[in-house]
Amino acid sequence: MNRQWRIARYPRADEALGPAHFNWVEQAVPSPGEGEFLVRTLGLAPGPAQRGYLSPGHSAFYGTVPVGEVMRGRGVGEVVASRHPEYIPGDIFSGSLGWQDYSVQRPRGAEFVFSTRRIAAPLRPLPTTTLGMLGQAGATAWFGLVEAGAFRPGDHVLVSAAAGGVGSMAGQIARLKGAARTVGIAGTSEKCRWLCADLGFDAAINYRTENLGERLRELFPRGIDLFFDNVGGEVLNQALANLAQGARVAVCGYIATDYAAQPGAGPANYRFLVYQRARMQGFVVFDYWQRFSEPEAALTAWYQDGTLQDCEDLEEGLEKMPDILASLFTGGNRGVRLCRVAPDPAHLPLLVRGGR
Amino acid sequence: MNRQWRIARYPRADEALGPAHFNWVEQAVPSPGEGEFLVRTLGLAPGPAQRGYLSPGHSAFYGTVPVGEVMRGRGVGEVVASRHPEYIPGDIFSGSLGWQDYSVQRPRGAEFVFSTRRIAAPLRPLPTTTLGMLGQAGATAWFGLVEAGAFRPGDHVLVSAAAGGVGSMAGQIARLKGAARTVGIAGTSEKCRWLCADLGFDAAINYRTENLGERLRELFPRGIDLFFDNVGGEVLNQALANLAQGARVAVCGYIATDYAAQPGAGPANYRFLVYQRARMQGFVVFDYWQRFSEPEAALTAWYQDGTLQDCEDLEEGLEKMPDILASLFTGGNRGVRLCRVAPDPAHLPLLVRGGR
Repeated sequence: MNRQWRIARYPRADEALGPAHFNWVEQAVPSPGEGEFLVRTLGLAPGPAQRGYLSPGHSAFYGTVPVGEVMRGRGVGEVVASRHPEYIPGDIFSGSLGWQDYSVQRPRGAEFVFSTRRIAAPLRPLPTTTLGMLGQAGATAWFGLVEAGAFRPGDHVLVSAAAGGVGSMAGQIARLKGAARTVGIAGTSEKCRWLCADLGFDAAINYRTENLGERLRELFPRGIDLFFDNVGGEVLNQALANLAQGARVAVCGYIATDYAAQPGAGPANYRFLVYQRARMQGFVVFDYWQRFSEPEAALTAWYQDGTLQDCEDLEEGLEKMPDILASLFTGGNRGVRLCRVAPDPAHLPLLVRGGR
Repeated sequence: MNRQWRIARYPRADEALGPAHFNWVEQAVPSPGEGEFLVRTLGLAPGPAQRGYLSPGHSAFYGTVPVGEVMRGRGVGEVVASRHPEYIPGDIFSGSLGWQDYSVQRPRGAEFVFSTRRIAAPLRPLPTTTLGMLGQAGATAWFGLVEAGAFRPGDHVLVSAAAGGVGSMAGQIARLKGAARTVGIAGTSEKCRWLCADLGFDAAINYRTENLGERLRELFPRGIDLFFDNVGGEVLNQALANLAQGARVAVCGYIATDYAAQPGAGPANYRFLVYQRARMQGFVVFDYWQRFSEPEAALTAWYQDGTLQDCEDLEEGLEKMPDILASLFTGGNRGVRLCRVAPDPAHLPLLVRGGR
């Protein structure tokens, strides 16, 4: 059987995303046509952008998923049947698998979430190495820092939603690449402790209980060189007022105002871009698809030698996907949220994790 | 005698700048000390940034001018007496002369408005060549386009406050450098006609009478590649929603919200920076002080061959300075506003203006 989550209905503007918006369906496993292959889903990577698939008029890139269709989502899987000469059963594949056990795939180019990739040297644990810390979350943090943020060793770096998946990787990568200071912003004191005690952030700010502006002035007396922003809203606005000369804001997301019933206020402090000859640069990780081996190599080495700390939050079971996605909008996750749908194939080499 | 405008009082938050904020004073001409020289003001360049000198807590760069002091302002003048070996009477000099006939100067480095410059090959008309079209206004437009805006031939370019001093130069430079399309935004239909008929803009939008969003979609079907923004506010916000992929916003100013009694809303559409992998880059022209010869050479050649159209608005008389500065905030000017304080020295070569 092919278990699936299909769209039941779209959330209303004032409604939080939840299990009510999905239907659990069980169907026969499909068969690949000529030039296609069948993939069994092993892991899925829920991300905040997926909320847009249920929001008509919102998702500029990808479009909504029609009601009644299988929920779209990237994942990693194993080729189990093939009518394509280059894809052989046993191959490990990442692509837009959807929230289901099986999907029929064909190779596709670098078209954002629809892009496909045959994994040349897969390693267990697959969710970690392909979708998570060493995969897409890591690559997003990497290219956001390096490309959009033009990271320079010695930078004083601020990361918002630092306890989130991309944020917890961005802070660690900044540290490992030689940031002079890495500060995270998070929404609970427990997350703040985790950032400093476990992930090596130099400091963390609880934006719910602390005065953000004051703390930024304290922690960045000479200004923020690089701000990796996942949040937008007032966090972005306060950070803009504390930029150093020549600062770069890597705009990764804006979860504070995205999907809000009322459109959020823009960052009035953008005027500091002039004072500080600073920039805000948006980016989309899929633009760097052809260069994913760069972060993979560096992050894998740091993972193996134990300098990159574990910041993964791995759930088990396809049935949990609606709750996992919803949790990304309520601050419920800590680190890179992933879902293992089926066990990793035992024949894959195990990535040895050092430093423990 | 040394005629001067001194600060009488600062405008209240809800008050427009005007002559009431300045006092006309006549004093003895000062004498230069050792290492100093006396400059006679020939021309002044009023600019919107000067409003900050009367706004405590506002002007991050320069600081306010204390009440009772001579109003600060850049200008061009002639050295008339000197106790500095490198400055000889007859030399032409630009620097922070203030709103007065005579000032004592000493050489200063590239410290924003305080920077000084001995003009190697001065040409008449001095205000034009040193302070205006071929000087600071031109350089601001040039470096905003080339550096902050990373101009590329073939770009579809939008300029706000296009009938202003920097805007009218930015649109012309974009055209002369090979923009595929140059569109200006202005506040009267007369200004819009002037942009298209006289300055060679491909189109102009009257933001007061036209639907800006609709017109942008019409005029930029594939999006704006480069937006040179002097205005901010809702103009910036609408432009952000119409960016092309990889677009660049050169943030020059934000006159729409600057000095407003209530702080303006920020550009909520900054989220399009992510969709479009676009950037907003602030800049300050004085950072390019050492490279002013680049725009000078190019703009002078275009001026001489007649391809750069005259967009100067030259007033005469120091006594008009308060009104001229005020007019920059009411849409009263058209083109590069300058004030000639004394006649150009007749011994300077005259720049021959071709193409007429």
